[in-house]
Amino acid sequence: MKKIEHIGIAVEDMAKAEKIFSTIFGKNAYKWEEVISESVKTTFFKIGESKIELVSATNTESPIAKFLEKNREGMHHIAFAVEDIEKEMERLKKEGIRLLNDNPKTGADNKLICFLHPKDTAGVLIELCQGKA
Amino acid sequence: MKKIEHIGIAVEDMAKAEKIFSTIFGKNAYKWEEVISESVKTTFFKIGESKIELVSATNTESPIAKFLEKNREGMHHIAFAVEDIEKEMERLKKEGIRLLNDNPKTGADNKLICFLHPKDTAGVLIELCQGKA
Repeated sequence: MKKIEHIGIAVEDMAKAEKIFSTIFGKNAYKWEEVISESVKTTFFKIGESKIELVSATNTESPIAKFLEKNREGMHHIAFAVEDIEKEMERLKKEGIRLLNDNPKTGADNKLICFLHPKDTAGVLIELCQGKA
Repeated sequence: MKKIEHIGIAVEDMAKAEKIFSTIFGKNAYKWEEVISESVKTTFFKIGESKIELVSATNTESPIAKFLEKNREGMHHIAFAVEDIEKEMERLKKEGIRLLNDNPKTGADNKLICFLHPKDTAGVLIELCQGKA
């Protein structure tokens, strides 16, 4: 794990949340992206070597819609940058940590991603994240 | 805001959580500290320019004990490094963001800290964090 790639924050109202984080950081977001396969809209801020990713649902089937049914808005996941996602997935699986997807999938920001099961990671939803070549 | 200083993770069982994160990161924690004034024990991992701070309660009055009464273990707060905490507190107060403490207080890791009210920050408990001179 090289660094915190981003922290994902689940928000109800993207326009409102974007305004709040612009105020907190004293600067504007630099990227807006819809991930159709995940039914989410994302807004990115850069902060040091990491990003803050605001995520909202685009329909009721979205994992973010389901999260917000059970939880208040707020921190959703932490993504760590890895060099070789398949190698890391293999290593963690051998350590007994369950993966939420068997193969890397394509996430926002042109990344290959894999989520770890929060029951095996002290309740934290962790994403492994590798930049695509 | 210069960088993510750390992410705070509230844990029920510190020994178990430390083992899990050692496995995930493939390295050991480098610092263990009790903060008597906050009734917490902390364990730190370094990851890139940021830290992961595991936090557990040392008594039932601890803010972490209260958090764990209402929530499952998992992400608790995000701390951002600032150059001048009093100036940032003043700026954010003027922007209408409530502060949880009027003056900076001393946190773990020899830092001056201040928390922002999560109702004003899209549900995220945000800590401002300045290294002490």
